Amino acid sequence: MTPTNAFYAQSGGVTAVINASACGLIETARQHSDKIDKVYAGRNGIIGALTEDLIDTSLESTEDIAALRYTPSGAFGSCRYKLKSFEENRAEYERLIAVFKAHNIGYFFYNGGGDSQDTTHKLSQLSASLGHDLRCIGIPKTVDNDLPLTDNCPGFGSVAKYVAVSIREAGFDVASMARSSTKVFVLEVMGRHAGWIAAASGLAAENEGESPHIILFPEVVFDQDKFLAKVNETVNQHGFCCIVVSEGVKNPEGQFLAEAETHDVFGHAQLGGVAPVVAEMIKATHGYKYHWAVADYLQRAARHIASKTDVNQAYAMGKAAVELALTGKTAVMPTIVRTSNNPYQWEIGVGELKDVANVEQKLPEHYITDDGFGITFECEEYLRPLIMGEDYPPYVNGLPNYVRLKNLPVKKILNEPFDV
Amino acid sequence: MTPTNAFYAQSGGVTAVINASACGLIETARQHSDKIDKVYAGRNGIIGALTEDLIDTSLESTEDIAALRYTPSGAFGSCRYKLKSFEENRAEYERLIAVFKAHNIGYFFYNGGGDSQDTTHKLSQLSASLGHDLRCIGIPKTVDNDLPLTDNCPGFGSVAKYVAVSIREAGFDVASMARSSTKVFVLEVMGRHAGWIAAASGLAAENEGESPHIILFPEVVFDQDKFLAKVNETVNQHGFCCIVVSEGVKNPEGQFLAEAETHDVFGHAQLGGVAPVVAEMIKATHGYKYHWAVADYLQRAARHIASKTDVNQAYAMGKAAVELALTGKTAVMPTIVRTSNNPYQWEIGVGELKDVANVEQKLPEHYITDDGFGITFECEEYLRPLIMGEDYPPYVNGLPNYVRLKNLPVKKILNEPFDV
Repeated sequence: MTPTNAFYAQSGGVTAVINASACGLIETARQHSDKIDKVYAGRNGIIGALTEDLIDTSLESTEDIAALRYTPSGAFGSCRYKLKSFEENRAEYERLIAVFKAHNIGYFFYNGGGDSQDTTHKLSQLSASLGHDLRCIGIPKTVDNDLPLTDNCPGFGSVAKYVAVSIREAGFDVASMARSSTKVFVLEVMGRHAGWIAAASGLAAENEGESPHIILFPEVVFDQDKFLAKVNETVNQHGFCCIVVSEGVKNPEGQFLAEAETHDVFGHAQLGGVAPVVAEMIKATHGYKYHWAVADYLQRAARHIASKTDVNQAYAMGKAAVELALTGKTAVMPTIVRTSNNPYQWEIGVGELKDVANVEQKLPEHYITDDGFGITFECEEYLRPLIMGEDYPPYVNGLPNYVRLKNLPVKKILNEPFDV
Repeated sequence: MTPTNAFYAQSGGVTAVINASACGLIETARQHSDKIDKVYAGRNGIIGALTEDLIDTSLESTEDIAALRYTPSGAFGSCRYKLKSFEENRAEYERLIAVFKAHNIGYFFYNGGGDSQDTTHKLSQLSASLGHDLRCIGIPKTVDNDLPLTDNCPGFGSVAKYVAVSIREAGFDVASMARSSTKVFVLEVMGRHAGWIAAASGLAAENEGESPHIILFPEVVFDQDKFLAKVNETVNQHGFCCIVVSEGVKNPEGQFLAEAETHDVFGHAQLGGVAPVVAEMIKATHGYKYHWAVADYLQRAARHIASKTDVNQAYAMGKAAVELALTGKTAVMPTIVRTSNNPYQWEIGVGELKDVANVEQKLPEHYITDDGFGITFECEEYLRPLIMGEDYPPYVNGLPNYVRLKNLPVKKILNEPFDV
């Protein structure tokens, strides 16, 4: 069989370790040059495929590809662009196939969350019906940890570690100041519909009274009176109160506590700013001096404090994706299978993409304490291994020495414009 | 001479390395047990001295004191409590002397910013006039880097590193997303009156077009039109724009931006934070999708990414304070003296506290570029050494293993209440 090229694209919000998956994929593909010729990356994700704007990763040095392992963000550009259904926009799928045919692409690797896995699945179906031999493999990625089938998602462990480290550090700070100054600290974290990131903050509290004292999950309807009582009780007992609030917390009417006017292209409400709302609510009721922080992109870009477990798993997913493709698989996604908690052990599994699409894995009820403000021992047992280990990037001039690739374009063949 | 006890207190906002100063001080004092008996710490800073609530640090193990070197926050508690002038409240100073006499305290070490150095100075004068032999030594500490006499302040270098690392990481993130999503990112940093922290973010941009593209300093009056034009120019040129804004930025009327723009587009009160104000202003004018972050306490508590230079200097200041006291000095503060930029070299100097009080060191004009949005080469040369080196804390269970001291009280002798 003549080797064909591979296409790789990053999709959706980037993470501290999505490039580690790219690294695993490209390094593994380079070891199989008898079957995979070049890996082309989509410039800005799938948009690059639609517009025939491909990046030739074979022009990147071994060292630069290796450096992807410790570089956060999406090295080839990502995008928020959801392909519509066949019925609504079959032209997009046909265009993808046309571009892939033109560039002799026989492998499609899509590194993203639920929507991306759905796209990968659809593409596998269409390519089969059009007779183009395209092996379509999903690679899991999401800081939200909300994909089904896999024990956890690459990207999540590092956000989890960042959030747990940060709320521990802030907790030490506030404890120092509480006697005469700040008594309440609120940290807002990501997690639109699932409380995994908020839950991870709970790992910081290993002993009674430690920060965080209260976690607000999107899975638990916000009860203002109960919350304010708990804050007061905590300050009275421990002298201060640290709170982690998920951006996705909703009031009893089903509205986000913080609502913004903009919507992103998927129609999700753009969130941000629930921390000041919660802080002000406490001040108005109890009068406590507060501080609040919104970590936003800092949390998902924080490669400097990435989880070694997460980095290893992200790399392994990229590598496994190539290996699955080479064994003839299509419409699948490598997964992480936990085989033991203590000691933590995991292996690589395979999930069918038809089972992935549009299923959102929320925090199970038994992971949240009865009062709705904390995580259970079972939850800790699940989360702890995911933040284990440090994997520091190299530093130059006092700063992490992240790589910027050359990202040189592949010459266009179709050369026909396509509007996205 | 019979050894006397020493008193040590932490003051004002805590930092990632103020405990490293405590570590240097206590470890050095323990080496001079012929002259210094016990080091008593004020519980919650000077409030502990006023209320005769002293902590006996001699009951802490060698290991726990050593662990202070890598533990952020104020291990004995800090406070925001400014002693008034002699004339306004001489009783406070007399109370301090009474407590120190009762506990045989001959050394007073005060670890803080400008106000604390002022207090230390006043106390040295009063103790002399009351005939109590009290050697009063200040130890510099402030994330704001605004103390005079010393080249830089312990605490600043680590915030500087955190901010530079964070805006570099966020810059990589936004660059990945800009094609179809977020084009503007705004990070709010501390520094109400001086722009040193904001300036440090500029170290992340080592090449043309790198994040941050715009820095807003408290030293530069905010010019909305010029700013918005620069944002647009940056997005057009580089595809995205990362902005670091100091919490202390003021409009031409002299009001903090965060307070002046108190209403968002719907007329809701804006609940604090200059970052969302700036972000919304950009959206309203240019329509760019934005994200913003407010690091708040996370930046000053971030011991996990502390600067090694900063940790070393903080420790050295604590050590030098004891050494100055033992050579009979009073009303002084150890300082950091830069002797060479390349290679960076520094030594310990001595500053007179009478010259420290109420002088605020702002960012000099020639450290800011002509357009008011960046830092000059001279500024970079000054800042770069301060963020050099990493000094990672030990990790247990995936998290930094910071120490919590026993903080056992010294038995009261006066046992008279004192209201603070």
